[in-house]
Amino acid sequence: LGPLVTLTTDFGLADSYVAEMKAVLLARCPRARVIDVTHQIPPQDVLAASVILERMLRVCPAGTIHVSVVDPGVGTARKLLLAKVADQYVLCPDNGLITWPWRRLPDSRAAHDLNWPPPTPASSTFHGRDILAPAAAALAAGECSASELVGIPVAPILLDVAPATKASDVVIIHIDGFGNAITNLPAELIHGIRLRSVKVGRRVIPVRRTYGDVPPARPLALIGSSGLLEVAVRDGNAARTLRLKVGSRLTIGG
Amino acid sequence: LGPLVTLTTDFGLADSYVAEMKAVLLARCPRARVIDVTHQIPPQDVLAASVILERMLRVCPAGTIHVSVVDPGVGTARKLLLAKVADQYVLCPDNGLITWPWRRLPDSRAAHDLNWPPPTPASSTFHGRDILAPAAAALAAGECSASELVGIPVAPILLDVAPATKASDVVIIHIDGFGNAITNLPAELIHGIRLRSVKVGRRVIPVRRTYGDVPPARPLALIGSSGLLEVAVRDGNAARTLRLKVGSRLTIGG
Amino acid sequence: LGPLVTLTTDFGLADSYVAEMKAVLLARCPRARVIDVTHQIPPQDVLAASVILERMLRVCPAGTIHVSVVDPGVGTARKLLLAKVADQYVLCPDNGLITWPWRRLPDSRAAHDLNWPPPTPASSTFHGRDILAPAAAALAAGECSASELVGIPVAPILLDVAPATKASDVVIIHIDGFGNAITNLPAELIHGIRLRSVKVGRRVIPVRRTYGDVPPARPLALIGSSGLLEVAVRDGNAARTLRLKVGSRLTIGG
Repeated sequence: LGPLVTLTTDFGLADSYVAEMKAVLLARCPRARVIDVTHQIPPQDVLAASVILERMLRVCPAGTIHVSVVDPGVGTARKLLLAKVADQYVLCPDNGLITWPWRRLPDSRAAHDLNWPPPTPASSTFHGRDILAPAAAALAAGECSASELVGIPVAPILLDVAPATKASDVVIIHIDGFGNAITNLPAELIHGIRLRSVKVGRRVIPVRRTYGDVPPARPLALIGSSGLLEVAVRDGNAARTLRLKVGSRLTIGG
Repeated sequence: LGPLVTLTTDFGLADSYVAEMKAVLLARCPRARVIDVTHQIPPQDVLAASVILERMLRVCPAGTIHVSVVDPGVGTARKLLLAKVADQYVLCPDNGLITWPWRRLPDSRAAHDLNWPPPTPASSTFHGRDILAPAAAALAAGECSASELVGIPVAPILLDVAPATKASDVVIIHIDGFGNAITNLPAELIHGIRLRSVKVGRRVIPVRRTYGDVPPARPLALIGSSGLLEVAVRDGNAARTLRLKVGSRLTIGG
Repeated sequence: LGPLVTLTTDFGLADSYVAEMKAVLLARCPRARVIDVTHQIPPQDVLAASVILERMLRVCPAGTIHVSVVDPGVGTARKLLLAKVADQYVLCPDNGLITWPWRRLPDSRAAHDLNWPPPTPASSTFHGRDILAPAAAALAAGECSASELVGIPVAPILLDVAPATKASDVVIIHIDGFGNAITNLPAELIHGIRLRSVKVGRRVIPVRRTYGDVPPARPLALIGSSGLLEVAVRDGNAARTLRLKVGSRLTIGG
């Protein structure tokens, strides 16, 4: 059996686009085991794809190949990356998508421009199918080593988002499908201190262990399943209820 | 090749939550063959998950492992179950989710509390990924037998829904994505009698074999593909047209 | 490892219907590698399924088995087809679904009525699970040859849509999930001429290579990733902006 190959896109599920990528991948590497992460990244939301990519890197085994295609610049001069993070491979456009894994999992990371002649001429609108999927397949099948796929090492383009290192840096970086608002504050930073509450605007929100620790419809902050502080409403939608969005600031230990 | 492992959740498809469960499962049991059932169970709708689980148990081969996660009580004192039904395994919270298979497929069923130290400390909000997926993988890989995963036999928590045994018991238990309204009346109960119509409120609805047996936009009742009587509207939405919902009663043979 | 088997339906993702087809398929042919194309074909939109099927036939390897179930006539006298197109197999209702592959990939195509006793009695409402999935599995597993599954060769039912062969024939045949409007004009027909613009009503739209060649929110026409001319709006929805729908005509070389 071959390596895990994960696919993340903003293609939606109504068309055959994702399936075409899979067909190309599985035709060239029949043994690959494909996992769809999500294809409902909001259109062109590079940051959302970046946050989700890092979650996958935390749970996948070494050698996994992640293909993430949120690519508003397809067909223009933007580069494609092959990055190595957490002993896994990432194939994605060089448009900031690598940011969150790059900054949160910094050990022995590396990025290179993908430099590989695709097996058939690439369309000008679908590099996910025509370049990234065959490159992932070549890597998964052991047809090429990672170093044969790349050119020079590069400093990837990065978005303006990073893990918080002090209380005044805490900001919402992601809203999930349930309306949970995920911050950039890693659990390890608050294990030392005894954080009892956070403030959203003027509202004080208790820090608890799990949803069941507050009554239904009440807000709480908790360490979420990717090890970041998040704001939730039990059985509800925190982003809507508390009017949180990506970029909203939180006051810690107020 | 390993056993089938089915996944059912209310996690939706916009996030990486389902994919994280799969990554954990496939890292530990590479040979598992994973089938997504649906991840669009209405939030916390334990009965809907229960009805869908029973459909899967009817079509999957012996040895299949079903993981169903609709789990409003995650992180609280609720138990997790490992049940055996129809020679297949079910891993789910002990919150009533097992009800419909338990009551409709009663032969040699059994349920135990899952009692298994997960390989890494479980988060307090994502037991699907941190306990159920690795348990399913351990079972699928043959790493543990089912009896090594469990504690004492238990009488699982059951919802107040059961197959109809007499005409006055017939009730809608599920509305599917097309608006078909599925009852608790098993086909085997009406094979003897010659059922020509059912009544929804005062409306008489003919019993037919298939949709094409009535004109477009007209209601009918028929034996659906899980062997239960259901109410449909040809090329339409019965639940909306006839204002049916879970719990609505039907008059049989009126 | 077995062949690729692709699944396309209008079943949606909220129910277990797709998963039941997969369970039947994988129980009978454990080695099949299943690709979900989409299950969000608009209800009963046979033409949309046909256009998507042809896209998959262009990217899948020889021997792939495509199961496409958009089947308003289920349970009536409509036939089921086993067609061979582009050295691949298609199992679908004989309701026009084969049209676009049949007309665009005409080399050594053939169609036969499926004539195969399903292993268990078929329901009257779910032939995808009860006939097409086991037939696909029997073929994928090498249990039967294609010729053992079929009766007489047939001329399949065809919709009134075909590749354009002259400028006055150009028409929108598909709107994708992004609102891109795909025409029936194959790229090979315009490689000779130097097409600079097309007209939608009175609006002149430039022909370009990729989205990035026009400013955001501006329309363009381009050769899409299935080799057909399509009309798009950069970072926007062409169908909505330009009021295009299936059947809308384009003026070429105006």
